[in-house]
Amino acid sequence: MNTNTTTHATPHPSAPQRPVIAIDWGTSSLRGARLGPMGEVLESRAWPRGILTVPPGQFEAVFHELFGDWMQAQGALCLISGMAGSRQGWQEAPYCPCPAGFAELGQHLLWLQPGRIALVPGLSCMEADTLNTPDVMRGEEVQIFGALQRTGRDSATLVLPGTHSKWVQVQSGRVTQFQTFMTGEVFAVMSQHSILGKTLDLNGDFDEATFLQGVDQSQQSGSVLHHLFAVRTLGLFERLSAAQLPSYLSGLLIGEELRQQAVSADSGPVILIGSDALTLRYTLALQRLGIACQSHGAEATWAGLFALASAC
Amino acid sequence: MNTNTTTHATPHPSAPQRPVIAIDWGTSSLRGARLGPMGEVLESRAWPRGILTVPPGQFEAVFHELFGDWMQAQGALCLISGMAGSRQGWQEAPYCPCPAGFAELGQHLLWLQPGRIALVPGLSCMEADTLNTPDVMRGEEVQIFGALQRTGRDSATLVLPGTHSKWVQVQSGRVTQFQTFMTGEVFAVMSQHSILGKTLDLNGDFDEATFLQGVDQSQQSGSVLHHLFAVRTLGLFERLSAAQLPSYLSGLLIGEELRQQAVSADSGPVILIGSDALTLRYTLALQRLGIACQSHGAEATWAGLFALASAC
Repeated sequence: MNTNTTTHATPHPSAPQRPVIAIDWGTSSLRGARLGPMGEVLESRAWPRGILTVPPGQFEAVFHELFGDWMQAQGALCLISGMAGSRQGWQEAPYCPCPAGFAELGQHLLWLQPGRIALVPGLSCMEADTLNTPDVMRGEEVQIFGALQRTGRDSATLVLPGTHSKWVQVQSGRVTQFQTFMTGEVFAVMSQHSILGKTLDLNGDFDEATFLQGVDQSQQSGSVLHHLFAVRTLGLFERLSAAQLPSYLSGLLIGEELRQQAVSADSGPVILIGSDALTLRYTLALQRLGIACQSHGAEATWAGLFALASAC
Repeated sequence: MNTNTTTHATPHPSAPQRPVIAIDWGTSSLRGARLGPMGEVLESRAWPRGILTVPPGQFEAVFHELFGDWMQAQGALCLISGMAGSRQGWQEAPYCPCPAGFAELGQHLLWLQPGRIALVPGLSCMEADTLNTPDVMRGEEVQIFGALQRTGRDSATLVLPGTHSKWVQVQSGRVTQFQTFMTGEVFAVMSQHSILGKTLDLNGDFDEATFLQGVDQSQQSGSVLHHLFAVRTLGLFERLSAAQLPSYLSGLLIGEELRQQAVSADSGPVILIGSDALTLRYTLALQRLGIACQSHGAEATWAGLFALASAC
């Protein structure tokens, strides 16, 4: 007889005694999850109600409209990550400067209702170059700590692909440095608003060989501003079809993002966090360059928020 | 007494005996000039009637509507350069493969009305890398030969800034290799359609110091996909104003275009051909990198077309 049949109901050693509501409120989307005592997702919701759709002063109302029922549970605790904590969001939660770890994040929560609802701050860092250029993230910090907890590692290079990809260095549990790449957004605007959009077919299926051809091109000498024009000429010379061109463009841009990364093999495989479609592409490109990696999905967000709630 | 008072009326030794109509028919604009026996502009016209505005089959009608009166002159000869010779234009004038000189260009004119109206072909080349990526130009070839004739040089590096900048190597009077950079178009789509557009003010005056700050940033290690994000963070951290950000973005992108150029000092100053506003920016950026240059304006188009007509 298995005595562990009730394991799923056994609280995690550090689990909060209170119901946890985890919310990721981004620029264009809003999703939330009601978490169980082990951090498991009991119920989840998602809407296209990103902060850009919410008029100033209406965040609290939208929050109660969409999550009010969950918040009625006795002692419910809600943590919100993402752009809701930006200047254009519910309230500005000032960036937590790097190096920063899980503890600093917890200390800098911005409480909207003390003990009940808090915004998770983003992170900022200064470029280690002579110009001291700042960089920022909001929302990814939660995924980073969530993924680290799941892997049991405290030092790693993490990549969070997306509209604005993040490359993150973590040492001894703290984010020491990170860089943002506008890869996803450059793909979107070039394929939709530039002359490249006239010849490519965004409905084309992902083509792995063509994607890798783009990755290879990106590793050649010269600037990506030049390589981009190949999307036009390879179409013009009928060396790639309209349906293949988006895969080529994607390979060019992801390859450019990877081109100058110094990934130390000592720190173990790169941890990728993102949707399956994106982590597949990054895995292919990293493998092409001989860099090992492992992928985590969006569940890293819930894991990170649950861990933060557990420490409250 | 000066015996040269009639110089302006003396035909050039190689001048055509016939009235020359020079036309530059691009993607978004159309301009034409009626040239005198020395190649001087007697009259010029310009319209926003680029090839994208002309329905298929209507090119001849538009041409006669706008230039029919000029063509009535006895023996008028008209040469048309630019996208009118593309697949989407009046008729496709196949690219002339590099290396190609002034003579090859003349041999490959596509006559629409023999001896009266011809399209100037563009140039194509194959990248000197392992992937044999093609590159193309249409219209710039005429400016190149026009500027070379004016400078008296037969070997040079030429830069034609614009939506799609061209870097061109000319040796012994022939274009041996060239590369296109989508610098101008990336500036346009990122400032109008990306998140960067939310914080920058495109009406801001050109700010030389901020432009050079962008050039300096572009020379730092790392990818332009990362540097672009500084346009957002420098605004966010109030280190640059909304009005300054376009100058910074421009410096970043032009600096990236220049970053990996191998310009040999042996071949003399770089020849810049373009509008005053653009050649000013490239001159500033090239000077910042210690590269000498000299500028030519749009008159290089008329000089090139006149020289071609003279050789017909």
